[in-house]
Amino acid sequence: MYSSTFPTLATPAGAIPTDAPEWNRQRHSQMPSQRYRDVYSRVPVPLTTRDWPSHRLTRAPLWVPVDLRDGNQALAEPMDPERKRLFFELMVAMGYKEIEVGYPSASQTDYDFVRLIAESDIAPEDVTVVVFTPARRELIRRTVESIRGIRNPVVVHMYTATAPTWRDVVLGHDREGLKRLILAGGRDVREFAGELPNVRFEFSPEVFNLTEPDYVLDVCDAMTTLWDATPERPVILNLPATVEIATPNVYADQIEYMHKNLDRRDAVILSVHPHNDRGTGVACAELAVLAGAQRVEGCIFGNGERTGNVDLATLALNLHAQGVDPMIDFSDIDEIRRTVEHCNGIEIHPRHPYVGDLVHTAFSGTHQDAIKKGFAEHRSRAAAEGRPERQIEWRVPYLPVDPADIGRSYDAVIRVNSQSGKGGIAYLLEAEYGLELPRRLQIDFARHVQRHTDERGSEVTAAQLWDIFRTAYLADPRHTPVELVGFDTTGRSTTITLRVGGIETTTRHDAVGPVEALTEALARLGFATEILSLHQASTGVGSDSEAITLIEYRHGSRTGWAAGQDRSVLTASLDAVMNATALGQEASMR
Amino acid sequence: MYSSTFPTLATPAGAIPTDAPEWNRQRHSQMPSQRYRDVYSRVPVPLTTRDWPSHRLTRAPLWVPVDLRDGNQALAEPMDPERKRLFFELMVAMGYKEIEVGYPSASQTDYDFVRLIAESDIAPEDVTVVVFTPARRELIRRTVESIRGIRNPVVVHMYTATAPTWRDVVLGHDREGLKRLILAGGRDVREFAGELPNVRFEFSPEVFNLTEPDYVLDVCDAMTTLWDATPERPVILNLPATVEIATPNVYADQIEYMHKNLDRRDAVILSVHPHNDRGTGVACAELAVLAGAQRVEGCIFGNGERTGNVDLATLALNLHAQGVDPMIDFSDIDEIRRTVEHCNGIEIHPRHPYVGDLVHTAFSGTHQDAIKKGFAEHRSRAAAEGRPERQIEWRVPYLPVDPADIGRSYDAVIRVNSQSGKGGIAYLLEAEYGLELPRRLQIDFARHVQRHTDERGSEVTAAQLWDIFRTAYLADPRHTPVELVGFDTTGRSTTITLRVGGIETTTRHDAVGPVEALTEALARLGFATEILSLHQASTGVGSDSEAITLIEYRHGSRTGWAAGQDRSVLTASLDAVMNATALGQEASMR
Repeated sequence: MYSSTFPTLATPAGAIPTDAPEWNRQRHSQMPSQRYRDVYSRVPVPLTTRDWPSHRLTRAPLWVPVDLRDGNQALAEPMDPERKRLFFELMVAMGYKEIEVGYPSASQTDYDFVRLIAESDIAPEDVTVVVFTPARRELIRRTVESIRGIRNPVVVHMYTATAPTWRDVVLGHDREGLKRLILAGGRDVREFAGELPNVRFEFSPEVFNLTEPDYVLDVCDAMTTLWDATPERPVILNLPATVEIATPNVYADQIEYMHKNLDRRDAVILSVHPHNDRGTGVACAELAVLAGAQRVEGCIFGNGERTGNVDLATLALNLHAQGVDPMIDFSDIDEIRRTVEHCNGIEIHPRHPYVGDLVHTAFSGTHQDAIKKGFAEHRSRAAAEGRPERQIEWRVPYLPVDPADIGRSYDAVIRVNSQSGKGGIAYLLEAEYGLELPRRLQIDFARHVQRHTDERGSEVTAAQLWDIFRTAYLADPRHTPVELVGFDTTGRSTTITLRVGGIETTTRHDAVGPVEALTEALARLGFATEILSLHQASTGVGSDSEAITLIEYRHGSRTGWAAGQDRSVLTASLDAVMNATALGQEASMR
Repeated sequence: MYSSTFPTLATPAGAIPTDAPEWNRQRHSQMPSQRYRDVYSRVPVPLTTRDWPSHRLTRAPLWVPVDLRDGNQALAEPMDPERKRLFFELMVAMGYKEIEVGYPSASQTDYDFVRLIAESDIAPEDVTVVVFTPARRELIRRTVESIRGIRNPVVVHMYTATAPTWRDVVLGHDREGLKRLILAGGRDVREFAGELPNVRFEFSPEVFNLTEPDYVLDVCDAMTTLWDATPERPVILNLPATVEIATPNVYADQIEYMHKNLDRRDAVILSVHPHNDRGTGVACAELAVLAGAQRVEGCIFGNGERTGNVDLATLALNLHAQGVDPMIDFSDIDEIRRTVEHCNGIEIHPRHPYVGDLVHTAFSGTHQDAIKKGFAEHRSRAAAEGRPERQIEWRVPYLPVDPADIGRSYDAVIRVNSQSGKGGIAYLLEAEYGLELPRRLQIDFARHVQRHTDERGSEVTAAQLWDIFRTAYLADPRHTPVELVGFDTTGRSTTITLRVGGIETTTRHDAVGPVEALTEALARLGFATEILSLHQASTGVGSDSEAITLIEYRHGSRTGWAAGQDRSVLTASLDAVMNATALGQEASMR
């Protein structure tokens, strides 16, 4: 299944063959996979030791959203000025302090937006503005023109693709020729902007991850020399995984190689810019930070060319979920989402980490049951510690973060379909109707719900659950064989009047409670129903609440559940007994 | 930015501080991150050496789609029998040989589907059927009941959550108590199904990634002993990252620890089941395979509870893109997508790796230019090698795989918006209209297109590009100051008749070609236009094709481009000269 090339030729001991055995019936496909080569045969990393797998994340990197540039240029309809401004203001409000605002030499809209920042106060003075340019003199000139008079710190970000295919097919330069072109661009940047005190420089060797490590190291070192990187005015070296081409550990190796071998390391901010072609952009960013990267460029929720840039929201909330302050405010994730969707014109997928509609939702029964128990444990632990629920350690199963941390309510957590069990059903009834079901009734009720969902095959709302509950446990009065006409409780004596087939019978019962009196009266008329357990509960809230009585009964050999509901607890209990009698009778006649 | 706990306390040398410097202005957020603990402080992995980062992927693992179980139970509307069957047939057709078909003890629909497999021929005999059950005697009995009479190989898959929070909060068992419960379930499985010759066993310690490694190792070893795992009848140990809680390298460490320490390793198929809460499910699966996993459970395009299961399509195509046969047929990915969307009722995101609507699309100018050059290089290399384009090595920039490998056409690759440059524009005109523009005209035309898109802000189709082209370079006859009434070429002599303000003038031009004759005639009437270059091209295909002449001209101090189009090459050229004259005249009067 695997072999090894680096740093040692190890094969895991004990790996069993997958070639021929009975239980491996997979066959070769017709996919023309031989058309592709892996990164090891293209640009191997000359790393002799590897430290990143031993590191851990303990602090947020510097974040740089590139939604207004890399994200924007990938939209079928790029943002108009109003949307650009909305998005920018959102990022400022969330706490981003360095924002790539555009590609001013490529688009008039972008140029105008940089001018708006220069000429208005939409960018607070502690926000650094990044402008993006290719290494071409006229375009660099126009880029620097766009930032004239700006008071904010500015990063002029120059890029050139450095990978072999790009050199050969796109740019028509060999290694030396391309290096000369890049350095010429670097000199132009220095010439036009070197004297501006608020400007720093960034260089991106685009397609870094497909470039020979020794070559890209040489070019990067030449740039930090040319731009005279110092710890006081560090140069950003941004190393993009422009098109993902290998498992994310390879990118981490590439970053660690640069981290360990770059000149002027203390004068370099090592930055990464992962894309997501292999669906591993988040992993690439995280492992790269373990390997020495200090700064991450990406987009909020992962917009960008093709499969998008790495998702800065997921990265930030991944830190949050393991106890590290993301340094960015995601406390109202749905508001962030609405703005981002409006600006990009692309909807977020329902299973997108942290923000999708379904990600705090459990449909499966075991998950729902566990979540319900987890919430109960959370509440009781908060009470025991005497601290607010929002502040104590989070341990609820199946929910990696407390939805409340990102502005979501618990109500959205549990939804019921035909695969749901009693836990979720009970949770929903309790959350929406304040009705807490005894465990044995949960089991009974889940069968009713499942019969409903197996027949209809669709999701059930709390309101529908309530309907199913009433149909199951509150008997239809038209089918009641015996009717409670009246009762009168005085001291320890209860008088019960029942009507069967138009004939009323009144009986008196001493030294028993009214429920027992009613069962005695019913038994005397031939409606023997044994009450196995009786539970009082309430539904609704405050002055609108009604008492509800839940009864488990035996009628003949059959046991079942019935309920009664009324403003009065006593009436609810007697109704429950009458319903048990009617339901038991009905069941015995089937 | 990071510290280290394991295996050594290393801190990368040269990391620059991010605490206080001028260029780090990030501030602490109000997010309550202190509520969470990382995995290192919860369940550290006692691994002393680590080999997986040195391994590489050279073969596909065993794939097991769980769409009909784990995916299905996460749907607001679980699949009806017809959809279940459609999805199952799709998976069989794609080449999957082991398929988890349901949770028969939890859902009547699932039970009935297993019976359908037993009683029909929808499952070819080389397809192994997996059924899922909790470790409860009555549910195991019903699960085994569901597979009676089935001829296919069957895996009975029993799971129990093993992590501390689940033990404490959900199950109410300590370590030993839970182990007894699991072994009791294992004995029930053996009792009901041990004698069935076509049945193998699988055990999942759910929430493996949050369970103490020594405990889960102990439980897994007890299970392989109980089930008497042998190389001939191996037991599957499936280790889920039920809720992602750490960077994917930690999961790889956890898997390598199990791989290296399990008893009866040659009688165990080590399986993984990553979810995607942190957006790193694909990375977890890949690094786990590097660490010793041989089998991967997931869903096609990543459906499943919350953020979904790991995406088996992305995993397979990631292998394909680095030269490894995925053993599954993805040659018509859009057909697969349609079926999956129909069955799940959830649309796939436009940026989903390999399958999203936008993932083979480039809007940015530099990307388009590079892709265009890459396609040209690809075609010429195929021609030079004398082999079909679909078979030679793929190197086109920005496209990790040839869209044709997965049944997509090149036409969808390039789309044009206000951020697009000449490359994409030229590509579209050439692809749709067969019109190849000279490089200098590409630059000129891109300005026209950008003016259009800056004003309208939306994507431009090939047809709209063609309209913009005609407006820009084919003059409106109503505004033509001079009209070509007729021409006659005989031998080396051409007679030209022009009309200006109602007056016709005929001139004769010897020893020059007709184009030069026309410019001479125009100059004599005061319409001096210099032709700087002239290009012949065609538009359309076959008998419908028309000649098109493209001219770069100078009129006074202004240079520009004009075009002429006709069935006849000669007429097209003369029209181009007339249009150049009209356009130059018009521009000089502005």
